[in-house]
Order: sequence, then C-alpha cells, then structure tokens
Amino acid sequence: MTEAKIISALNEENFSHFSKTYVPSRLLLGPGPSNAHPEVLSALSLNPIGHLDEAYISLMSDVQQLLRYTWQCNNRLTLPMSGTGSAAMEASIANFIEEGEKILIAKKGYFGDRLVDMATRYKADVSVMEKPWGESFSYEEIKYEIETKKPAIFAIVHAETSSGVLQPLNGIGEVCRKNNCLFLVDAVTSLGALELLIDEWKIDLAYSCSQKGLSCPPGLSPFTMNKRAEDKLSSRKTKVPNWYLDLSLLNKYWGSDRVYHHTAPVNMNFAIREGLRLIANGGLDNVWYRHNTNAKKLWKGLESLGMELHVSEDYRLPTLTTVKIPPAVDGDGFRNHLLRKFGIEIGNGLGELSGKVWRIGLMGFNSSEENVDRLLNLFDTELKKYSIFESSTF
Amino acid sequence: MTEAKIISALNEENFSHFSKTYVPSRLLLGPGPSNAHPEVLSALSLNPIGHLDEAYISLMSDVQQLLRYTWQCNNRLTLPMSGTGSAAMEASIANFIEEGEKILIAKKGYFGDRLVDMATRYKADVSVMEKPWGESFSYEEIKYEIETKKPAIFAIVHAETSSGVLQPLNGIGEVCRKNNCLFLVDAVTSLGALELLIDEWKIDLAYSCSQKGLSCPPGLSPFTMNKRAEDKLSSRKTKVPNWYLDLSLLNKYWGSDRVYHHTAPVNMNFAIREGLRLIANGGLDNVWYRHNTNAKKLWKGLESLGMELHVSEDYRLPTLTTVKIPPAVDGDGFRNHLLRKFGIEIGNGLGELSGKVWRIGLMGFNSSEENVDRLLNLFDTELKKYSIFESSTF
Repeated sequence: MTEAKIISALNEENFSHFSKTYVPSRLLLGPGPSNAHPEVLSALSLNPIGHLDEAYISLMSDVQQLLRYTWQCNNRLTLPMSGTGSAAMEASIANFIEEGEKILIAKKGYFGDRLVDMATRYKADVSVMEKPWGESFSYEEIKYEIETKKPAIFAIVHAETSSGVLQPLNGIGEVCRKNNCLFLVDAVTSLGALELLIDEWKIDLAYSCSQKGLSCPPGLSPFTMNKRAEDKLSSRKTKVPNWYLDLSLLNKYWGSDRVYHHTAPVNMNFAIREGLRLIANGGLDNVWYRHNTNAKKLWKGLESLGMELHVSEDYRLPTLTTVKIPPAVDGDGFRNHLLRKFGIEIGNGLGELSGKVWRIGLMGFNSSEENVDRLLNLFDTELKKYSIFESSTF
Repeated sequence: MTEAKIISALNEENFSHFSKTYVPSRLLLGPGPSNAHPEVLSALSLNPIGHLDEAYISLMSDVQQLLRYTWQCNNRLTLPMSGTGSAAMEASIANFIEEGEKILIAKKGYFGDRLVDMATRYKADVSVMEKPWGESFSYEEIKYEIETKKPAIFAIVHAETSSGVLQPLNGIGEVCRKNNCLFLVDAVTSLGALELLIDEWKIDLAYSCSQKGLSCPPGLSPFTMNKRAEDKLSSRKTKVPNWYLDLSLLNKYWGSDRVYHHTAPVNMNFAIREGLRLIANGGLDNVWYRHNTNAKKLWKGLESLGMELHVSEDYRLPTLTTVKIPPAVDGDGFRNHLLRKFGIEIGNGLGELSGKVWRIGLMGFNSSEENVDRLLNLFDTELKKYSIFESSTF
C-alpha cells in the first residue's frame, strides 16, 4: 500500500473539523442516568489495563464481593454484565427460558412490557397479570396466579421507573419455591438505594443497572443468581440462543477459571468498583435510610406546594416520584425551562403517563437534601410561569 | 420501613473496607485493549447527561458522522452498539440470519470460530472454509466457495488478532453482489488503523470495537450496514430473536425518530466521539500510514534481533504482529517479566498458537515510534535472561 493510493481513495464527504468533546453540566433528577459520584468519574478515567491482567482479575473479585454485599446475597454467580440494564434483563430471559416454557410476568408499567417482548422473542409461553400504571400487586393476587398458572419463572419489577411504584416482595419467594418456579426480580431502580435482600427474600435471579443507585454512568448491569437458578441453567436441553449473554460462558470468565469470553469494558468496571465501595464504606443501611428520608422530604414539599402525587403513599417509590402535571401547566415547557435555564433534568411520563406526570429521580449520589431543596425552590418560583392560563394559580 | 428493621436484617459477610480504586499504569502492546488517548479519558470522565437530552442527541449525530468518515461509507445506519466488539458481531448474525439460512464463514483463526458458534445458535445452515492460523484466503478460493455454496451471507475477518493475518478483501464484494449474498466483515482490529473502504469495497455489513484503532477503552462496538443489508433486514419473516441487539429498534433511537430503546452508555459515547475526532483531525490517511510505518519498523527490528515472524510479509497484519517464541525461551516468563518489571503488556498466543507466539499490538494511540523503540530495546536486553538453557543465545 502506497501513501498516494490511500490519499486518492479517501471519501471526504463526512469529514469535518469537530471541536473537543464537551457536554453541558447537568443535575440529573429524572428517571436516570443520575449523576455519577466524582470519585467514580475519577476511577472511570484511569488508563485501561488488560482484561486478563492480574490486577484486573483482582479488581473483578472486589467487584463481585462488593456486589454480593450490595445485593445482600452469597451467590457465587454475581457479576456485572457488559451492557446497560436491559442487557441483564435479556440475559435473565435468554438463559432460563427454553422454547415453550411458561413464564408469568406481573406487568404494571413500561418495563413489564419489555419483559413480555423479550420472553416472546425467546419463544416462552407467556402469561401476563396486569395492573394500571401506578398500582402494585398484592401478595394474594400473585400467590393465586402462581398457583394457578404454574409457571417455570415468575418475573416482577421491584421498582417501576415508569409509574413510580415500589412493589412489596415479601413472601413471594416462598410461594415460588413451593410451586417449583424461579423468582426473577428487576431491581434496576432499587439496587444500592432501597431495601433489597436477595437471600432473605428468596429471590433466585435479579438484575440492575449502574447509573441509578450505584452512582456510576450507564454501561454495566449487575446480575446475580442462586443455586436454584444454576441448577435450572445446567439442566437446559438446548444451547443458550444468545452468545454475548450466555451465563455459562460468562461464568467461566467471572468464575474461578477466568477463561476469556469477550473483552470486558474495563473502565466501567473500575467505575463500578468505586461506586460499590462508596456504598459499602457508608453502610448499606445508611444509604437506604438516606434515600427514604430525602424522598419523603420531596413528597411533603411537593404536596405543600399544592401538587398531587400519582402513587398512593403505601407503595410509592422513593427513588422515582411521579408527580401530576397540574392541568393548567405546560409540562414540556416547564421541563425544558428547568433544563435550559437551570441545567436540571426531570423526566416526562413514559407511555400512557406521557404528558400526565413528571418523573423526579433521587438516586445514588443525587439523593441529597440539597437537591431536594433546590428543586422544590424552583417548583415554587418557576412553575407559575408555565401556567397556560397565564395566571399564577393552578 | 424503620431504620432499626434495616439494620437488624443486614448480612455483613461480604462487607469489608476496600481502598480507593486504583490500577497500575500499563503500556498495552498486546492484542487489545490498547491504551486510551488522554483526551479520550478526559471526555470519558465528563459528568453523564440524559440519553434523550438535546446535547446528547447532537453528540450522537457527531459520532455517526465521524464513524461514517472512519468507515469510509455513507451508510445511514452507522452507529456504535452498547457492548464490546462481540456484541456487534452477534448483532450482525442475529439480525440477518433466519432459521435455516445459509452462511459461509471463512475461518482462519479464533474469531472465525466465534462466528461459527454464534451462527449456530441462531440456527443458520453454516458452511465453513478453513485455513491454518497464519494464512489468508485467495480471491479465487473465496469466489469458488461463494459460487458453489450460494450462501445468503459470506463472513470473513479482515484482521485476525489471533494469528496476525491481514485478509485482502479486494473484489469479494463484487462476487457477493453477483451471487445475491451479503458481505459481512469483522473489522475489529482494522477500523481506524488500516486501509478499510466500506463503500468502495462493497462491504454490506461491518463491525468493530472501540479499544484498538479508536484509542478508547473497551465498551462500544461500531457497526455499519448499507441499503442491501437494510433490505434484507426489512424482509425478515420473523422477529429478531434478540432484543438488546435488534437493529430495527436501535435504528429508531439512532435514526431520526430518537425513540428510547435502552439507556445508552453515554460516557463511552463521549469517549468515542473524542477518539474519532482525533482520527479525523489527524486525517485517516495519516493514521493508516502511521500504523503501517511503525509496524514495519517493529518487524525489521525483531528480525534484526534474530527473531522469526509467524506470518509471511504478504499478508502480515500491521496492528498485531505474531512473533515466534524462540525455542529456548520461557515465553510466559518473559511476558510476565515485561509486565511486572516494566509495566508493558504483550500477549500470549491464543488457541493453537498459545505458547508458540507472542502477540504484539501497535494500535491507535499506542502505534508510535517511541513504543517500538522501547519494546525492541527490551527484547534486546531482557530476552536473554529468559533462555531456558541459561545461555545468552537462542
């Protein structure tokens, strides 16, 4: 290859001189991502090392131990998957469903729908139990459906980011064991933020994400599975129809063999180790307490401004609050105003709640009294500017 | 939930006080990851912003334009997938294979094997053409197999990291078009480093990674597909059996609709924008020239030290050199010595070449004259210490 040949062949159509990469500074109080902790960002920007380097192998062990503490479990197979939360959600389906197997999905928001979509692609026999977006299931309802449908897997979202509902999980693990069913929990918006006891609650399989309770950027999805799930996996008759998310291959890399599977996103693993370490050093109980306290302060503040919360206090989600957009207010206008003028992101409603609620997240590093005060102050002073009646009341 | 209840329930078995996350500084001259450019690490550690924020949407467009330049194509559907290289490899199979469809895979190393494994999981009718690890296929051999087997897809690795072979691709695209077959190229170790002209070479589908030519950490996998591939995708009879990697959904997020699919790994996208920008600003032709020149310097230097290269110069890969471990040398001992004493990583052989060759990578930011000099100097002074005959000759 000569230099001249290269130059003559180049297509410059998509060439331009871009400036150095820059993004504006935001306070992310929406459904996620949330802001990363400064120490996490500092770990993230360490120079990469090899994914088979002994220093990396040792870091992997730290991450696994810290994840076990944060999940409150002793599961051997506990690891961060190399993709955002939906990757581990898909792994939970792909590895444990064989064609025609029954899965029962408790659907009460957007992420229940996603589980249904995934399970269908893996050719499960899907049953759905459903609640309006903003309600939770009772223990009795779930027990009845499991006993009646006899699924191989029962899947439910612990913290529904689309509706702002915290689903009580007490007792369900016991029902699943009695009915020879795996208990699968989506903990995307609860891990590292809300009470979650994988072993005590007899949860067989769970997944989460890095960008909420763990104060990291998005890019990894923590996953854990117990012996019951391992047994189901090893009794598969067919190969897992997904290579990247195949847990038997991932187990060889994250287990004691450390056999190369895919090149790990090493820097994201530096970051998650730091995010998990900050949680452990602060104490998981203190982290849970902080999230509860700040959420209650937000709820009280919003109500005292005359706003109405979408979800009943009994099962309201501390990490993500859905607050009704007052009828006389331009919801998108106010959101954009907060973002452009104050650099604060809050979320629009998803799916059927779009335009009806805003979604306010207080997660990980961002769950602080200071952030609650800052936001309440802006609701107090700025919201009236977005009344569509051009009056100051709503 | 009371504070007392939380505290009593906590399992402290996996708790310990870890120190701040730290990894040693390494010069990564193995098969990848390679060191990231300092400006890339600085972009990586910017605070995350929302994946639907207008500033992020604009950054996504920059990334897509810069990728089109680096791929040398005008494909609308050009995007980085949210996983490491193998994720995009799997996307190339999952989206374009339907049960029973024919794929022909040209296998000449480890990553050909991986394509076979993936295609089997998606129930393709797999044909394989094979060469020893260290050789390449001729145009005539490929043409004959495509004309005989009539596959729906022909897949080949451009730069085989396991063997150190650069596969010439000239003319194959034309053969594929004449035989109504998609041309799929694995460019993991060539994108942003070696001459690669997606449009001119009539490549229909290609994927790569972030941690080699692009000087980023691992975590994203650039992907591109043309109109022929889009047509095949839209003529599928069945849903893509993989949700995370479903290109029709990804297209809605990266295309003009910007419909939420999964939460993007935003920080990795900050990083890849910067890595691509540095390539564009330096000029792709200069980048290719630098990789070729430094590799030749390395080859000459190794040979002048009496070492033998595994691959014939005709199809030797500039980004990854396989050099034979002299029979009298303890290969692992020397590698570990370089790592522990000098902080330099070189790779062991993979698969059948394990213990027979070392793999030396000069990719992206790490392809520099200085790194070549440094490594050659260490081969000159340190290798003799690892002769198993305890003599200074080998």
